[in-house]
Amino acid sequence: MKQVVSAETIVSMLKQVTSSDKDFVALHEPSFQGNEWTYVKDCLDTGWVSSVGKYVDRLEEMLQEFTGVKRAVAVVNGTAALHICLKLVGVERDDEVIIPALTFIATANAVTYCDAIPHFVDSSEETLGLDPLKLGDYLQEIAEVRNHTCFNKKTGRRIKAVVPMHTFGHPVELDTLVEVCQRYHLELVEDAAESLGSYYKGTHTGNWGRVSALSFNGNKIVTTGGGGAILTNDETLGRLAKHITTTAKVPHKWEFVHDQIGYNYRMPNINAALGCAQLEQLPDFLPKKRALAKFYENQFLHFEGASFVSEPKHCRSNYWLNAIRLSADYMNLRDEILRATNEQGMMTRPVWRLLSSLPMYADAPQMDLSVAKKLEQSIVNIPSSAHLGGTYVEA
Amino acid sequence: MKQVVSAETIVSMLKQVTSSDKDFVALHEPSFQGNEWTYVKDCLDTGWVSSVGKYVDRLEEMLQEFTGVKRAVAVVNGTAALHICLKLVGVERDDEVIIPALTFIATANAVTYCDAIPHFVDSSEETLGLDPLKLGDYLQEIAEVRNHTCFNKKTGRRIKAVVPMHTFGHPVELDTLVEVCQRYHLELVEDAAESLGSYYKGTHTGNWGRVSALSFNGNKIVTTGGGGAILTNDETLGRLAKHITTTAKVPHKWEFVHDQIGYNYRMPNINAALGCAQLEQLPDFLPKKRALAKFYENQFLHFEGASFVSEPKHCRSNYWLNAIRLSADYMNLRDEILRATNEQGMMTRPVWRLLSSLPMYADAPQMDLSVAKKLEQSIVNIPSSAHLGGTYVEA
Repeated sequence: MKQVVSAETIVSMLKQVTSSDKDFVALHEPSFQGNEWTYVKDCLDTGWVSSVGKYVDRLEEMLQEFTGVKRAVAVVNGTAALHICLKLVGVERDDEVIIPALTFIATANAVTYCDAIPHFVDSSEETLGLDPLKLGDYLQEIAEVRNHTCFNKKTGRRIKAVVPMHTFGHPVELDTLVEVCQRYHLELVEDAAESLGSYYKGTHTGNWGRVSALSFNGNKIVTTGGGGAILTNDETLGRLAKHITTTAKVPHKWEFVHDQIGYNYRMPNINAALGCAQLEQLPDFLPKKRALAKFYENQFLHFEGASFVSEPKHCRSNYWLNAIRLSADYMNLRDEILRATNEQGMMTRPVWRLLSSLPMYADAPQMDLSVAKKLEQSIVNIPSSAHLGGTYVEA
Repeated sequence: MKQVVSAETIVSMLKQVTSSDKDFVALHEPSFQGNEWTYVKDCLDTGWVSSVGKYVDRLEEMLQEFTGVKRAVAVVNGTAALHICLKLVGVERDDEVIIPALTFIATANAVTYCDAIPHFVDSSEETLGLDPLKLGDYLQEIAEVRNHTCFNKKTGRRIKAVVPMHTFGHPVELDTLVEVCQRYHLELVEDAAESLGSYYKGTHTGNWGRVSALSFNGNKIVTTGGGGAILTNDETLGRLAKHITTTAKVPHKWEFVHDQIGYNYRMPNINAALGCAQLEQLPDFLPKKRALAKFYENQFLHFEGASFVSEPKHCRSNYWLNAIRLSADYMNLRDEILRATNEQGMMTRPVWRLLSSLPMYADAPQMDLSVAKKLEQSIVNIPSSAHLGGTYVEA
């Protein structure tokens, strides 16, 4: 017998997961059960906390091994990673860059940092991320390719790149997207900020884009305090990524010579130390998060008016942030659910406001965003920390 | 009786300071003798390593108390601090910003990040930093003020700001510079990356600029791994600095709304924890560094061909990085001195290559740089860690 969704039924369902927990249940909090103290203390003991030290190299090697990319470059945060990714694929002033309207602000801001213009596109009902089929149809209408370069027929501007974001860890339909990008000579940059540990057709996200960005912010599946990484299978771009994120200094024992505009985006050694300890535990976090997601998924089978967001076809998701969707008749309950859960110390939140509706991006080009608009009104994220899954599994 | 400067005499002088030390003596290494571990462990124990936590607020309060500014905003590094300082005073695309040719690359890059153009000016023999009198004469020749706005008569571009950098911790002549800036309606932004603990006429550096930037990189007098801060006595700008360095998110318990282009420049809590412990020890580091500088100063009284760089008139310097200057007849020894000292494990380095000579800035406007060119060839930095002064004082 189905249970009708309401603020009360959601609160009571969430209590099953969180009841044994503290007064306040975060949406996603980190777990430091491994070598965090040991590695961080090693930094303090040796004095190597900053731009010199072994943990940055080690973190990059661990990321390469885990994701399968040829080169990972650790940086200060996911926004910085995205900014450099766009520079690396040649995004320049007045270019347009295609991004989903439904994403975190960093995706659009990184475009702006290149003096380029975000061009907002719609999301897929299934993946919550950029819809490649709808994008293909749209490009057929508005784009033309001349000399292997894609132009927006309406604005006259070059369209340089496409940046899908793997929402809450769920990969977009990468095969189709790669095909669309090839057809229109667009560079593919994966915003994999949320998808460390997520796979599409058996290959880790971040392997499809020419370059890709990870985030290790405090709310992510692993954290370095603040941090991110650039991933690429192009070794030349990988070397360039390292060079321009470390002020483009030409290696020399004492001379200070820089050969191009660079950025001070290097991850400090102390943050990388934390990251190494966290990455060691990722294989332990992933099944716990999956167990929690499966619990939620089963619970919501019995709900009317709300459904759990499960991993898309061909994907194995990290289930970074669990989400439910309210069906059309129940979307008006969203704010009541947010209020009731947060008042009871169980943190929930809606998805981001569509970027195309923010004042600084209101004039940016956009396609029909009907799916994204529906998702914006209907999604609620629910507590997702790995330890909640552990508790549930053990219970 | 004077000793003639040579690679050998410098090596033997440095050995007096460093002999009791390790095989390798860094130019500047941090000292973690205080509450570093306690505070960092507190972050790990509570899980608050990232964008939430008490240490960022505490670090900002400590910086306000120490420097006397009304508002300090902690950010990821000194480059980010400078970038935002320039945004805050209204630097826009195609503006010119006056900076010394003799500074670290970050000063120029921050200007470039605003799509503005660095305009390189000469240094003072005494302070090693921007020479305000020479700047005044130069502006009389090339600048005109119309409607309270300064223009470069040659390029037609607006000149918006002046960014002096307090080289190695030695303050520039701020009184005169403030007067020049007022006369030409130029915004003053202090690049105080190297001068935490340095005072001009009894007031801490960073109080003269409308906004100023600090750095807590690993080689600085106090470190947060990587980090920096924006300082200002203008409370409105201080609030704006906080807002745009934290993605310009409008405060709300769960909504994600951003009201302008922002940056992900917030310092992570774990780095701020390190910074709080370091700042507690700054009053202990400063006299040790002064003792080391005084030792060097006395040694070089007996040298012919090299002199120690002492704090300028009206200044109390933090002596962040000690430096010697070779006189004209001995400048050809510089590379031999660098080689001999570094080969013996005593780290020394020349000053930065003039930014106006780097490929990406070769076409930028510049005045006569004769003093900076001489300084570029004649300066050698010598080991400066606080603990070396402690050793010396105790010996």
